[in-house]
Formats: sequence, C-alpha cells, structure tokens
Amino acid sequence: MGHTQKKQGIPPGTSEIFGNIMNQRIHVINVIESIYREFGFDPLSTPVLEHADVFKGHHGEGEELLFNLYDKKLQELVLRYDLTVPLARYISDHYEDAPIPFKRYQIATVFRDDEVDKGHFREFTQCDGDVVGISDLTADAEVISMAHAGLSRIGFDNFLIKINHRQIISSIAEKSGSNNRDGYLQIQRALDAVSKFAEKYEHGVDDESQSDFTENIQRILKGRNLTDQAIDVICSVFVLSGSFNDAKLLELEKYLSGYPNAIRGINDLREIVSYLDPDVKKSVYLDLSLARGADYYTGFILEGSIPNIPVGAVLGGGRFDNLVRDLGGPDLPAVGMAFGLERIIVSLNELGINSDSVFSNRVIVAPRSSDKKQALLNTVRRMRKKGINVDYIPMFSLTEDDVAAYAKKRGFAAVVTDNDLGLQIIKIKENCVIDGFVFD
Amino acid sequence: MGHTQKKQGIPPGTSEIFGNIMNQRIHVINVIESIYREFGFDPLSTPVLEHADVFKGHHGEGEELLFNLYDKKLQELVLRYDLTVPLARYISDHYEDAPIPFKRYQIATVFRDDEVDKGHFREFTQCDGDVVGISDLTADAEVISMAHAGLSRIGFDNFLIKINHRQIISSIAEKSGSNNRDGYLQIQRALDAVSKFAEKYEHGVDDESQSDFTENIQRILKGRNLTDQAIDVICSVFVLSGSFNDAKLLELEKYLSGYPNAIRGINDLREIVSYLDPDVKKSVYLDLSLARGADYYTGFILEGSIPNIPVGAVLGGGRFDNLVRDLGGPDLPAVGMAFGLERIIVSLNELGINSDSVFSNRVIVAPRSSDKKQALLNTVRRMRKKGINVDYIPMFSLTEDDVAAYAKKRGFAAVVTDNDLGLQIIKIKENCVIDGFVFD
Repeated sequence: MGHTQKKQGIPPGTSEIFGNIMNQRIHVINVIESIYREFGFDPLSTPVLEHADVFKGHHGEGEELLFNLYDKKLQELVLRYDLTVPLARYISDHYEDAPIPFKRYQIATVFRDDEVDKGHFREFTQCDGDVVGISDLTADAEVISMAHAGLSRIGFDNFLIKINHRQIISSIAEKSGSNNRDGYLQIQRALDAVSKFAEKYEHGVDDESQSDFTENIQRILKGRNLTDQAIDVICSVFVLSGSFNDAKLLELEKYLSGYPNAIRGINDLREIVSYLDPDVKKSVYLDLSLARGADYYTGFILEGSIPNIPVGAVLGGGRFDNLVRDLGGPDLPAVGMAFGLERIIVSLNELGINSDSVFSNRVIVAPRSSDKKQALLNTVRRMRKKGINVDYIPMFSLTEDDVAAYAKKRGFAAVVTDNDLGLQIIKIKENCVIDGFVFD
Repeated sequence: MGHTQKKQGIPPGTSEIFGNIMNQRIHVINVIESIYREFGFDPLSTPVLEHADVFKGHHGEGEELLFNLYDKKLQELVLRYDLTVPLARYISDHYEDAPIPFKRYQIATVFRDDEVDKGHFREFTQCDGDVVGISDLTADAEVISMAHAGLSRIGFDNFLIKINHRQIISSIAEKSGSNNRDGYLQIQRALDAVSKFAEKYEHGVDDESQSDFTENIQRILKGRNLTDQAIDVICSVFVLSGSFNDAKLLELEKYLSGYPNAIRGINDLREIVSYLDPDVKKSVYLDLSLARGADYYTGFILEGSIPNIPVGAVLGGGRFDNLVRDLGGPDLPAVGMAFGLERIIVSLNELGINSDSVFSNRVIVAPRSSDKKQALLNTVRRMRKKGINVDYIPMFSLTEDDVAAYAKKRGFAAVVTDNDLGLQIIKIKENCVIDGFVFD
C-alpha cells in the first residue's frame, strides 16, 4: 500500500483542518453561535456566489480583491467578499417581508484574492452579528454585553472591551485643524497607528521605557506629516484613555468643549455604559486612540483585546448608521460586531486554554481477533446508548502498541481491545468517559 | 423610510435562508453531525477553492459542471464539485501523517454550474461520512447502523434502509448476456429506472393496478433496448426484493448459482446484516433493483427511503474500494454514506415533523416606554442567566399589536412589554419557556 503520488496541495491562502484542531474550531464557533442566539439574533444564510454588481462600487480598493468568474451563461459572478454587503442586499431585496428591526448573525466563509505573501488569507470565516433598524443606544450596550458574554464563555478570564466614538475622533480632527474629510481620515489613521503601537508596547513586544514610549508616539505622528498642533491634541487626548469613569469623561469634555460632536459622542458613551451590568462595565476600557480601520462607522466603536496576547483585536464592531443605505439598502441605522475566529483560536492556544474535554472524551473499540468482533460490536452499542462517542475499527494485524499509537494520534480517551486474557482497556486520558461503564 | 431600490436578487440555483427555516436546517445539520461524532468520525474542513488539476479528469461529464476561475496570479482554480475528491486529495497529500484507517465527516457547500431550469442547484450542502482503509464488513454494518440512527434521531418514525450489492448486479448483467463494461452499465441503469419507477408506484404517484405495474416495468425495460433474456432475468430477480431474510437469499442464490460474483455479493450482505442490532435489521430492505447512480461502487450499496414521501433517497452510499486510488490517492478500500439534507428537510415538512420546540422557544422583551428601558434590561439579564434566549428591542412608537405581530413573524414564544399598568406578558405559544420565570 505504498503511495508515492506527488502532493497536489491546496491554493495559497486557503486552509484544510482535521481532527482535534477542527474540533476546537467547531467548539469556538458553537459558542459564538450560542451567544448570538442567546441575544435574540436569527441565523441568515446567503450564497457564496453573488451577482458581480452586488459587490462592485462598495469596497473602494477592496474591489480589486474580488474573485470574479463567469458561469456557463456568461453571467458575471463574484465570491462574496464579506457578509455585510449581502446583509444590506438581503434587507433591500426583502424589505416588504423582513422583520424590521432585523437582527441576524452569519458565520460563513468569505473570499479575497489578497496578497498571501503578507500573511493574508484568501478564504476565511467571518462571524458577524448585526442589528439593523434600532437607533436606541440600548442596542449598542447589548453589543458590548454580547462581546463580554462571548469572550467569557469562549474561556478567556482576562480581557478588555475597548470603546471609543467616531464623533470624538472627528472633534479631535477639528481641534487639530483638519476640517475636511481627508484631514479627518488622516487623524483617524494616525490614531489607529498610535493604538496599534500602544498595544504592542503594552504587550512588551518592544522593550522600551515609558519615556521612549512618548518619544515613539511623537515619532510615529511626525512620520505621518501631522502638524505640531495635531500631535499635541492627539497626545493630550491619548493620556485620558483608561478604565471608564466619570472623572475622565469630565476631563475629556473640558478639553473638547466647544466641539458639539465630541459632547454628543461623550454623552452617547456615558449612556451606553449606563445600561451595562456592573460585571460587564468592569472590563470596559475607554481607548481614545481606538479608531477601527473601516471608514463606515458613525458612532460608538469597540474592540476586544486579550492582555499579553499581541494578536490584535479578537473582536470588533460599532455603529454604522449610513452603511446599509450606502450599500443599496433602505435608510436604516445599524450596530453590530464580529468575532475574530482565527485570532481567538491563536489566543486560546497561546494561553493554553483548550476545549480538549469537550471533544476528545471518546473511545476507540478495536478488536484484534476476529472472533471478538461481534461481542465488541455489542459493547459499542451499549456505550453509544450511554452517550459515549465510540469509534469501532477492527485491527486484526496490529499490535497493542499500534492500536494505542493510532488512538493517541486521533485524541481518543481510551482504547478497548482484546488479548489472550480477554478484554483489555488502555486509558490514554485520566478521568475518562468510560469510568463507571460496566464491561461484560 | 420608504425603500424603492430594485431587487438585485441572487444567482439562479443558489439560495438564501433566514430565521426559522434556517433554524430547522441548523437543527438537522447538528443532528447529522452528532451522529457522525457518535460513530467515531473526525471533522475535516477543506477549501472551497481547489487547484483546477485536482478536479479535472475524475468526473467524466460532470467536469463540464465545474465553476472555473483565475486568481490574480493567473492560477486556474475551481470551486469544489463534491467532497469525495478533496477527501482523496487530502489522504494522498497527508499519507505519512494521517491516521489510517481515516474516518472523516464533512458537511459543506459544493458547487456545480448545472441546469437550473431542470431544478438543479448550483450551490448546495453535502453531508458526507466515509471510512478509508477498512475492508472488514463490520464497517459496512456500521454505515447501516449510522443511517438508521440518523434517520431516527432526525425524527422519522418510519423509513427503510434499502440495500443491494454491485456484485449481484454484475451477475444479473452476466446472466442477461452482457459481458462487457457497457453491457453492465446498461443493466445497472435499467435497474435504476425500475427502482425509481417502483418507488413512485409504491407512493401512489401513478394510479395503476398491479397488472399494470408488471406491464410498465416490461415497457420501461423494452424502451431501453434490452433483450428478452435480460428483461426476463431482471423481472425474475426483481420479485425477490423485500424484507431481508434467509429464505429470500437462498432463492436468489439458487437463481444466480454458477455466478461466483453473485454468491460473493450475497454472502457479503448476509455477513453485513448479521452484525446489525435487531432494531436496525427490522428496517433493512433487500432491493434487488437498487443500483445507485454513481459508477464507482464496488460492493454493498444503500439508500434511505421514507414511505409515502416521493422525494427519492434521503441518504445513500456504499463500498467503493477503488475510488480513492482512482482519484489519485493511495490504494485503500473505503465505505461511506451521505445524508441528503434538502430531501430530508422536504420530507420532514411533508410529514409535518418540525423542530419548532428546539429553536423557537425564545422570548422578545420590548419596552414601549422609555422609562422602562433599564428595568426591562435587568429582567433580560436574569432571563438569560436562566438559559432563556431573549431578544431585547425598544419599540417606543409601536402599539401592542405591532409588537405581537413582529414577535409572531420571528417565531418568538412570548412577548414581554409594558403598558400603563406595568409589565405585560403576551404568550404566543403554549408551554412557553417563560412558564415559571418570576418577573418583578
């Protein structure tokens, strides 16, 4: 049974996942799905293939990353680039029937013909939950509560929910002397750079002292061609970041007084946080450099961050009151978030948090003599009736060691096999699912 | 908030699914997944995008149905046509590391640029479970047991597991005077036509008497240019179909004596069925016209059928000992099956079996006055801690009837809202999840 076929492999930027690594992934996805359901979201499934027009004209530079194809009838199709455009299209197409407010989650694969050399995936899973049609800020608070519930239930003991508000950012831009869209975007991106540096710094990626830190921030901002005035404003605001409390908000209000957008943003955040459970509130962190990459946010924004794990945000989102309309849907306010599946899994592994017990507590029954086949099949049936997951594989030509090695490779908790003396049980994990099971 | 945008829609042959229809689908998929896990299968995920070479040369006419595309680097890619070719590719690529026997399930979307006019989907879900590397017939018995467990747990009370054997079919072909590959395929396809007619007939789709039935079978076979000899053999064998028992096998053995392949096939079936639980055995039906469409089966074949529901097979599979090698993998025997998700859902709906209670037992909390927002949010948190799925949506400008209509549309079990007198609870379903919950 030798096999010397050369490897065909999979396209760069795609992935294949098997066994316990896939089990862990399924577990995390199940937890995310259960959280969305608990918060009242309905599942939506949309096609991988969409009409090309649906995605054209909405993603700016991102449009170059679309996978295009033609079907037999020479219709131009694309592979979905994200789950937000299909959401807007769905609401637009079904506006007469769809229940508005429209709350949906979708956990599905998206496709981008991106640069694999830079570590980008071309096929990956997004886990989005959005509410379309609610302007009341309790919906924003529900998003924060959901982020908190999700990270807790996935297994993180320690995390921050960083929040900020796009209207505060626009006032920072105004106070910096920028009064057009380009100026605003320049400030937004400068803040994003500061935020990312600050996160790396916190995580000790760069081994620098506090004085170096401030110097570095200044250097980053200067490198972006910002005026001294802008650098001064950004640095003054940045130091007000920290746990969410009234004193800090008052100080910020004072610093940005005269900027009505900022006052509106600060009041929004105050109201949103007022709706939170004290437990949830404890993990909320006002990060005044938090900007989020996407341009479409209009109000509160959030990111989830795991201290000491420098993978970037493990979730993100915010309010986007114009996007559904801009994507061709009706003019409805919206707020939502997405869990970052890959980064969550990387973080779990970095921290050694695993869901081993959830999935690997299963058993292989492997008769090694032919006349034990039937007896062991009967045992298997009794075990399955007790809710034990059991693989049954005859292994006639194999030794006990072979069987144990196979079981280990697949993450089984125990092996049930036979030898000259009768039934033989090899436990691979302690506290195994067969403890207490009565064998014949 | 009027919206008059024209509909963009989705490409023909794709689908979008929302709310309770999606909930039912998720429920069925979860049951199928739990069955595969219970029987010891590991999850495998492979990419939607595969190198074009992987799928070329394996599907004959099916190759015309491949969706082709080119990425930015002008590499030719295809969307996966099925899950079997990726299985063979995976085992081939990972032969040194993969645990053999290799048992995997994969529930995933596949793509075929097929004729939508004929009701074919171009994007649909397959639910495959296969074992590669076991020739022992206990593996075939496990497939039957799994089919039985799956259909039972999905909620069908009444179903048949039809079985047959490709070696019996090849002997029928020989006895009919066909002794080459084309002749064999002609007989196999004639049997398939008889089987499909017989199923429609059983289901009363055609309102004909028993004599018409035999006449019709003869007519179908004559229409296929079969010799009188072949028609005679097929009809003689066909009447031996029925519940699986020794008398019938002996009669078949007698009729096909002198054809060693048939004897081997009959013995295989006898052995496979001997491994089954009596409960499972009861639903096994020997269908000597069962042929299955795919050419690659080499031994036992099976289909699941729901009496009185003429949708065709709700599951299918069998042994395919050469396919993995033919697809470029190592030379390993294999046996497996696939649940037919769409047909299972159609059958459940036809029979009025629904999983309503599993997913719709959830509640909407909808404050209608602003000063009840916080109090009701606190109630929501207490409900979620009790494991109730709760949607919280402020509905300030809406009437009680509006709120109830919205809740009904989304399949909620109850509405909790407020009126002048205080808390108001509208139950939409009896025996609701909030029975026993203590409101303030």
